[in-house]
Amino acid sequence: MKIAIVLFEGFTALDAVGPYQMLSHTPGYETCFVAERTGPVADDAGTLALVAAKTLAEVPAPDILVVPGGPGQERQVENETLLGWLRAADTATTWTTSVCTGSLLLAAAGLLRGRRATSHWLAMEALRTYGAEPTGERVVTDGKYMTAAGVSAGIDMGLTLAGLLAGDRFAQSVQLLTEYDPQPPYDAGSPDKAPADLVAEMRDGSRFILQ
Amino acid sequence: MKIAIVLFEGFTALDAVGPYQMLSHTPGYETCFVAERTGPVADDAGTLALVAAKTLAEVPAPDILVVPGGPGQERQVENETLLGWLRAADTATTWTTSVCTGSLLLAAAGLLRGRRATSHWLAMEALRTYGAEPTGERVVTDGKYMTAAGVSAGIDMGLTLAGLLAGDRFAQSVQLLTEYDPQPPYDAGSPDKAPADLVAEMRDGSRFILQ
Repeated sequence: MKIAIVLFEGFTALDAVGPYQMLSHTPGYETCFVAERTGPVADDAGTLALVAAKTLAEVPAPDILVVPGGPGQERQVENETLLGWLRAADTATTWTTSVCTGSLLLAAAGLLRGRRATSHWLAMEALRTYGAEPTGERVVTDGKYMTAAGVSAGIDMGLTLAGLLAGDRFAQSVQLLTEYDPQPPYDAGSPDKAPADLVAEMRDGSRFILQ
Repeated sequence: MKIAIVLFEGFTALDAVGPYQMLSHTPGYETCFVAERTGPVADDAGTLALVAAKTLAEVPAPDILVVPGGPGQERQVENETLLGWLRAADTATTWTTSVCTGSLLLAAAGLLRGRRATSHWLAMEALRTYGAEPTGERVVTDGKYMTAAGVSAGIDMGLTLAGLLAGDRFAQSVQLLTEYDPQPPYDAGSPDKAPADLVAEMRDGSRFILQ
C-alpha cells in the first residue's frame, strides 16, 4: 500500500512533514514524495528543499493521497497536469487528504464539490468558491476525504489517519515516540484566540502571509 | 544572522522541520540546512531526503545552531568531524539548541556538561552519561543552551526561540499563521499519559523505536 505526498514549488514544509512523520512508519504502507519532476523541490521560504523520489506519472494509483498547501498552490490551481493527476489518482485512493491550502488544489480538481472540508483560516472563502462547504473544525472528514486546517493541523490529521489505517494502539505508539504532547508557549494558534489586531492585520493583508 | 540546522543520515524529519517552520521567517535571520556534504540527506525511515545547502565547513560560525535527533545520531556521536564542528560553531552562537536525541550530540561534544537539558524520554539516561542533568520539562533552557524533548517538542522550542529572537508578537503571528492550536486525537504523548504497557514495551525495546 502506497502513501503519496505531493510536492510543488512553494509548498509549506510542515504541511508535508507533519503528516509524513505520523504516517511514515505505518505497517504495510510505503510513503513516497512525488512531484511533476523528481529531485529537490523548494519550499515557500526557499531555504529548504525536499526531494521528490518519483514523478506523478510513476505513482498513478496511490492508496493514500496527501496534498500539502503553501503559497505555491496559487500557481498550481491552474496546473492541469497536477489537477488531472489528482483527479485520476483519487479514483484509486482509500483516503484523499490535504493540509492547509492543499484543500484548494483538491477543490480546484473538482474533488470537494458539495463536501464539508477545511483549509487555512485565511483560505476558507476561497475554498467555498470551488463549491466545498468550509467548516471550522481542525480535521474534517467527509467520506474518504480528510482535510486539515493550516500547517500544523496536518500533524493531528496524520495521527488521526494513522489510527484509522493501523489502529488506535499504533497511533498511540506514534504519538508517544514523537512525544506529541504539545505545550505551545503562546495561545495564539487560531483567529479566535490570537490578538484581534493581529488577526485583522492578516485578514487585510498588511502583515506577511505564509498560508 | 544565520540559523544553521544540521542534517545527518538517519535524522528524524520533524525534529528538523518543526523548529525550521517556526524560525524560517524570522526577520533578520537566514536559515540554512548544513551537513558534512551538500545534497540530499535521508531521514530515519529512508523515504524522505532533505537537501543540505551548505557543508559544515561553509558555515563555521552560525548565530543559532539547531541539532535534530533520530536513530542516526548513534553513529554521529563518534563522528569527530561533526563533534569538532559543533564545538567550534558553539563558540560563535547566541543560542545552541537541539531537538530529541540531538542533545546527545551536543552532550557528546562536551557542550552540556553540568547543564540542565532534555532529550527524547527514552534517552534521558544516555544524556546523563555525558554529564548533563536531565530534566522532565518539554523545553529546557540553561544559559544559551536550549534543548527540547522528543521530535514534536522542537515545534514548541522553535516558537519559544522565535519569541526570544523577534518578540512575542512575531511569535504569535507565526503561531497564528501555522494554526498551531494542537488537538491531538489521542492523549498518549508522554510516558505519564500513554498506556503503561505501551511505555513498558518501548522501555524494554520489544516495540520498534523511532527515537
